[in-house]
Amino acid sequence: MVSSFGIRALLSRRCHRLGLGLATRATYSSQPFENDPICELAASNLRFGPGSTAEVGADLKHVLSAERVVVFTDRNVRKLPCMQVLLESLETNGISSVVIYDQVRVEPTDASFQHAIDFLTNTVGTDNYDAVVALGGGSTMDTAKAANLYAAFPPKGGFFDYVNPPVGKGLPVPAISQGSLPPLIAIPTTAGTGSETTGVAIFDDTKTQSKTGIANRRLKPTLGIVDPLNTLTQPREVACYSGLDVLCHAIESYTALYFNKRPKPETPLQRPTYQGSNPISDIWALFALETAAQNLQLAISDPENEDARAKMLMASSAAGMGFGNAGVHLCHGMSYPVASQCKSYTPASGYDTDHPIVPHGLSVFVNAPAVFRFTGVANPERHRTCAQILSGASTAPKSKQVADADVGLWLADELMELAVRLDVPMGLRTFGYTEEDIPSLVQGTLPQHRVTKISPRPVGQAELEDLFADALDE
Amino acid sequence: MVSSFGIRALLSRRCHRLGLGLATRATYSSQPFENDPICELAASNLRFGPGSTAEVGADLKHVLSAERVVVFTDRNVRKLPCMQVLLESLETNGISSVVIYDQVRVEPTDASFQHAIDFLTNTVGTDNYDAVVALGGGSTMDTAKAANLYAAFPPKGGFFDYVNPPVGKGLPVPAISQGSLPPLIAIPTTAGTGSETTGVAIFDDTKTQSKTGIANRRLKPTLGIVDPLNTLTQPREVACYSGLDVLCHAIESYTALYFNKRPKPETPLQRPTYQGSNPISDIWALFALETAAQNLQLAISDPENEDARAKMLMASSAAGMGFGNAGVHLCHGMSYPVASQCKSYTPASGYDTDHPIVPHGLSVFVNAPAVFRFTGVANPERHRTCAQILSGASTAPKSKQVADADVGLWLADELMELAVRLDVPMGLRTFGYTEEDIPSLVQGTLPQHRVTKISPRPVGQAELEDLFADALDE
Repeated sequence: MVSSFGIRALLSRRCHRLGLGLATRATYSSQPFENDPICELAASNLRFGPGSTAEVGADLKHVLSAERVVVFTDRNVRKLPCMQVLLESLETNGISSVVIYDQVRVEPTDASFQHAIDFLTNTVGTDNYDAVVALGGGSTMDTAKAANLYAAFPPKGGFFDYVNPPVGKGLPVPAISQGSLPPLIAIPTTAGTGSETTGVAIFDDTKTQSKTGIANRRLKPTLGIVDPLNTLTQPREVACYSGLDVLCHAIESYTALYFNKRPKPETPLQRPTYQGSNPISDIWALFALETAAQNLQLAISDPENEDARAKMLMASSAAGMGFGNAGVHLCHGMSYPVASQCKSYTPASGYDTDHPIVPHGLSVFVNAPAVFRFTGVANPERHRTCAQILSGASTAPKSKQVADADVGLWLADELMELAVRLDVPMGLRTFGYTEEDIPSLVQGTLPQHRVTKISPRPVGQAELEDLFADALDE
Repeated sequence: MVSSFGIRALLSRRCHRLGLGLATRATYSSQPFENDPICELAASNLRFGPGSTAEVGADLKHVLSAERVVVFTDRNVRKLPCMQVLLESLETNGISSVVIYDQVRVEPTDASFQHAIDFLTNTVGTDNYDAVVALGGGSTMDTAKAANLYAAFPPKGGFFDYVNPPVGKGLPVPAISQGSLPPLIAIPTTAGTGSETTGVAIFDDTKTQSKTGIANRRLKPTLGIVDPLNTLTQPREVACYSGLDVLCHAIESYTALYFNKRPKPETPLQRPTYQGSNPISDIWALFALETAAQNLQLAISDPENEDARAKMLMASSAAGMGFGNAGVHLCHGMSYPVASQCKSYTPASGYDTDHPIVPHGLSVFVNAPAVFRFTGVANPERHRTCAQILSGASTAPKSKQVADADVGLWLADELMELAVRLDVPMGLRTFGYTEEDIPSLVQGTLPQHRVTKISPRPVGQAELEDLFADALDE
């Protein structure tokens, strides 16, 4: 028997809170809204399916008329079968010039972004390529986005012109009318980042020891190729930590401040990319959370479970479409200093790097229990929905018993149970942090306005100190 | 209490059939797929919310650098407040030249498309505008799409070069590399068509007395402005018939042949726009169906229920994103001759036209009970889900009792009950058709390969004869 009454109930609740209706009579003669009654869906073009990587050459040649292509990747992915498939596709379709840049740094920095920009601008030369292809994880896609932007529109004041404030100046990327960017095709090899769907490129700022980024819809790839054959080669840890990133993308974007709680911008140009949760992003977030909850453990425990890996990749793209429009909040905001200030931690296996790292998904997930214990009371209904989805139908009755005040605890417990099942190292102390690091971690989080401002519960220095203290031990 | 177990069950079923997993071990060394394992999400940029129409001037001026704008509309919409809002927004933002074309024909024809094309090409002149705005229903948006395409890329062989075969030659629209189309901003004033999200423009071909169209992703508007203030002025009949179109978009795209039942194309360029149902379009279709089922009657019975009208508009865009990627099938395929061959019917009120018409949504919905009685057995599970959503939770137990063989009947019954509640004229005889017209209606449907090919159950002449006979009386 097919039961869809739950989706009906869920959608009903969502519709009830659409925020797109007119809560009061809002006709043309009414007063202007104080808050922003408007949200946007910035679109992504995606192609899903096994073997879609082999179609890239035809797209470049026949749709985009590209003859000279620069491929961005890292030294590990360069050796994988998916690179061969890509190169064969370019060759078969008669792409005349292919240059490979395999120096992408895993967890990129301003310096590594700049290295890639210099390569594209000077080594290749801005007049000598027609399109860019990124084959890899979030680090690779983000590096390619940045290189493609800066090579086409070098900012007058240097690298930090386009970087999010307060680390950078947050100057607008030139409008479409100022010229096109060369097309960028993004091909993820991990199921986590969703970068193939977003207009965001994240890096570690070495000076402030914090992650920040460049966020503009023009950075969005022309086409994302979501090919499950490419994620079969993910090492266990990469599949696991990337998958936890997907979960957090979904939960954070679903629990983010609702879009109509933001002040109304003076012009549509000032509407932020991370606009808060909204009825469209909710659809993606719940689909992603549901799919990831069902498939993450399967995809990790059995790398040959190709179906589960395929579904995790689809969840990753869906979550990207959700958070790419809604945003993420505190788990990500706090993750940036956790990753940037890492001095000694290196994953036992799975990551072949020459520098200590807390992999992105892990640096996010380690904060998640503390964050949701804190934010639960701000929107119990949405946190309850997430906890229910994670808990599985078998523990359904619990939902009735958990009071609104405790829903955040429940969601945190579900995440901790998952961490135990997946053998994920938890607690910031595991990564070498102690009470003494809290001020520095807080200082690294406070500037992340883009994400802290859409936290469902306001945070300042004191709240962040408590959150990091709570996250030290799990 | 919040229950999300139903969405879990529903998504679980959907995931089970994702088709994006690898049913058999499909590694790089495996044999090519016979069917197409790949589907696409061609995205739409949409802005939702009351008052968003007033932002258009800022987008045109500052994002698109447009100084000279051509506005497409019809003579009715021209008189409405939304036109004033649009013109004020253009003026406030210093758009220097605004030309209005208000000759759009409701239910456009090849001749009316050509009239609009000539206006843009010759009266305005192809070098004399920077952007196009469409303010109106599907007829207006489709006319603007066609005019914008043909003025920029006049086909060598005449109008029918780009038209879907077999009526037209189906020649490809020039690739992106051949140049850009001027940007098109689409602002719907009815909650039905979803045209603001799709790359399709539909018209009546006067010679063959059948509807056909032009389908290409390049026709997709640059931005859709989904402003619920604009649909408050819809007459009851327009709100009703447009809403029935939304229902059919959702049900047809959800029940369309699954994408991986199509043959694999030789190149990605040959993958059809209407690719069959798929996991991404399913998300939109179910959201749209759910929202429309809850709000259609409210939106019609009380035009002042602004919340219900806003939700119907959102359902309309969501359904557009679903069927824009998946396609529609027999209700629409059969509607084209029903509309084109109309000799005498005119709605009692709500449509101010100088020619007989069966409004689009009505011409679709009148076929729906017969279609789903026929297609139910081809995919009982999906038809059951649709019937359940339409039936409401109160009749939930029925779902257990209805056998697979009867699910199509159940869905048809739900649609008929809705027709009674909304006082919708049903049965083709109501519109002046008799048994004698069936051969001609069938001949008008057979060429609609784009939609008939993704029917969940194959149809030929005999099946269509039976379907039209069944639809004569309801």
